[in-house]
Amino acid sequence: MRKVAIIGIGQVPVREHWNKSLKELASLALLDALQDAERDAIDGLYVGNMVSGKLSEQEHLGALIAEYAGFTGIEAIKTEAACASGAAAFRQAVLAVGSGYKECVATVGVEKLTEFSGLSTSDALAQAADADFETSLGLTFVALNALLMRRLLYERKVNRDDFAYFPMLAHRNAVHNPNAMFRHEISREQYRKAKMIADPINLLDSSPIADGAAAVIVVPAETVDVKNKRVVDIMACELATDSIALHDRQELLRLRAVEQSTRKAMQTAGIEHKDVDLFEAHDAFSVMTVLSLEASGFMRVERALQRAKENDFTVTSELPLSTMGGLKGRGHPVGATGVYQLVEAVLQLRGQAPGPIQVPNARIAMTQNIGGTGATVVTTILKSRNEK
Amino acid sequence: MRKVAIIGIGQVPVREHWNKSLKELASLALLDALQDAERDAIDGLYVGNMVSGKLSEQEHLGALIAEYAGFTGIEAIKTEAACASGAAAFRQAVLAVGSGYKECVATVGVEKLTEFSGLSTSDALAQAADADFETSLGLTFVALNALLMRRLLYERKVNRDDFAYFPMLAHRNAVHNPNAMFRHEISREQYRKAKMIADPINLLDSSPIADGAAAVIVVPAETVDVKNKRVVDIMACELATDSIALHDRQELLRLRAVEQSTRKAMQTAGIEHKDVDLFEAHDAFSVMTVLSLEASGFMRVERALQRAKENDFTVTSELPLSTMGGLKGRGHPVGATGVYQLVEAVLQLRGQAPGPIQVPNARIAMTQNIGGTGATVVTTILKSRNEK
Repeated sequence: MRKVAIIGIGQVPVREHWNKSLKELASLALLDALQDAERDAIDGLYVGNMVSGKLSEQEHLGALIAEYAGFTGIEAIKTEAACASGAAAFRQAVLAVGSGYKECVATVGVEKLTEFSGLSTSDALAQAADADFETSLGLTFVALNALLMRRLLYERKVNRDDFAYFPMLAHRNAVHNPNAMFRHEISREQYRKAKMIADPINLLDSSPIADGAAAVIVVPAETVDVKNKRVVDIMACELATDSIALHDRQELLRLRAVEQSTRKAMQTAGIEHKDVDLFEAHDAFSVMTVLSLEASGFMRVERALQRAKENDFTVTSELPLSTMGGLKGRGHPVGATGVYQLVEAVLQLRGQAPGPIQVPNARIAMTQNIGGTGATVVTTILKSRNEK
Repeated sequence: MRKVAIIGIGQVPVREHWNKSLKELASLALLDALQDAERDAIDGLYVGNMVSGKLSEQEHLGALIAEYAGFTGIEAIKTEAACASGAAAFRQAVLAVGSGYKECVATVGVEKLTEFSGLSTSDALAQAADADFETSLGLTFVALNALLMRRLLYERKVNRDDFAYFPMLAHRNAVHNPNAMFRHEISREQYRKAKMIADPINLLDSSPIADGAAAVIVVPAETVDVKNKRVVDIMACELATDSIALHDRQELLRLRAVEQSTRKAMQTAGIEHKDVDLFEAHDAFSVMTVLSLEASGFMRVERALQRAKENDFTVTSELPLSTMGGLKGRGHPVGATGVYQLVEAVLQLRGQAPGPIQVPNARIAMTQNIGGTGATVVTTILKSRNEK
């Protein structure tokens, strides 16, 4: 398989976009990425989206967005893997170019979630879980994560209030990201007083639903000047799955698909944990952040909570986390999230992140997009062409 | 890109499967295909499905089906491209193996459509069209095809009653296919008297909604014995798109994505029209059959209608059509249809079709899966290892 690289990135601010349709949001991000790449054509489009059928009464997003963006005729499909739809679409783009079959393709992640009743959005998101054995019992998506968090508190005797430091970090970083939804800090006191959503998960443990679209342009690495420092090389992109229903997992707190996709990605990239200069984790809920830090092999849950408390995940720390706000601060337009993570990692690797949240000398970034409660996980490792 | 081949096929009968869930249907087809392939493992799963979110309240089919079929952990995603979802998923499987990244993957097309009110199924299928400018005006999917047929009758002065011969052929072939839904013949008289659904499309012009699942196993061609006559080589698989809304097409009756994907597929395969021994067309409506015969470059609409009248598309004709019943006779479980077409083509190329519908000495088969009113088209060319 030939090596592939990202040469362009685009995004629309994560907001409540009631005045823009799916195809408008997606096209804006796509055209933004093409401009950034200084290209005017693509020969393939891979759309990541989860719930357009259920909420917007629109499927067939591949052809729809290809046409609206001005590329009628090209190969275009939609990929769905719940909240990991964006990175799953990126994985198809990597395969298409890596196979030698395509020369310049786009991945667009797009989602509209806010223009509907909260109830129907909750229903739509619950489709990431098992309809027969989880959602049919009335379990929402936050409720499933609450089961995980309750078990974690019980098994590992950790302090619930210590989870506060993850959303606090995310919000602090989001302040500087113009595309983030929540550009304000939150305090430990606010976290402690936050409304309980599904005990023990409170409002500030939960990333917000949002509308948004992000895009990246992928080409063969050999076709771009090796000295072009705007280019970011894709060292690895690995997708793994696990049981969809929580009750089918042998160890509830062990995210096996995170373990597997991280291990494979690091193997393919030929790197170790210490080489990772920043980690865009899937912090849909703060419990998911600590579980994925553990399953990725970075550190145990207890250590993660301790380091967060010591404010040791900032952009100048050893392992910067959620540098542009993460899902919690930037917002979580589900099918688009995986692509936002990639866009943000590229900004960091190019040295183009806003000053206060630029990771100094970032050379290797890892992004991780999780679908369901860990049933689909895509781990991507990107490398800057800048020397350290 | 390395060459790829199909080594196993599986299907469940197309029926109203009210007692089987999506994951059960999909797993049955997948395990059937693995048994046929004499394999017990896969390293990737590509699921084609269109409306599980809208109708079954279940997304995330990749991880769901991988687990239920006993392959927890493997890479698995869902691909959606309206009625072309099945072949679009197959296209991803071809890329995954062709790229050198995967060694043995499955494509499963699965759909459940009958267990719901007819109204909600119609709504779900209409999501293949443009929600903003077509379905919002009340246009259903059959209505869009009726617009095409009415325009065809007007522009080309063809006789509506002559369309009868396509469903008649499909039903005649379906009689011998144990997996088909409608195993009975229909007469010209029945067609003439059939209830009008969306004038000028009547009930017998329309393929039936159905439940079903079909699967194929794909491996690198070089890894299987060249003399193994059960193996079918994939000569080409090409996906193209067109405007999603009919009013955006420059020429309403010209299916450009059919033209483009057929041209590219034939080029890649290095074959001409005369080399095709059978054509599994996307006969969702009889108007689509004649338009795709024309756009594929086989013959003009007038000639297609004439040849159908002369009963010149049977399995012993120059160009056998819908040999196992097509969408009309076999049934049209939308996201599964593209994979059923592949399974049927493989049966023909292996010489395993039921006697009366076996195409004698079939060596090259072409299948064509169409999403929307021609907005996504996947054309696949398969080749038998049997000598003529």
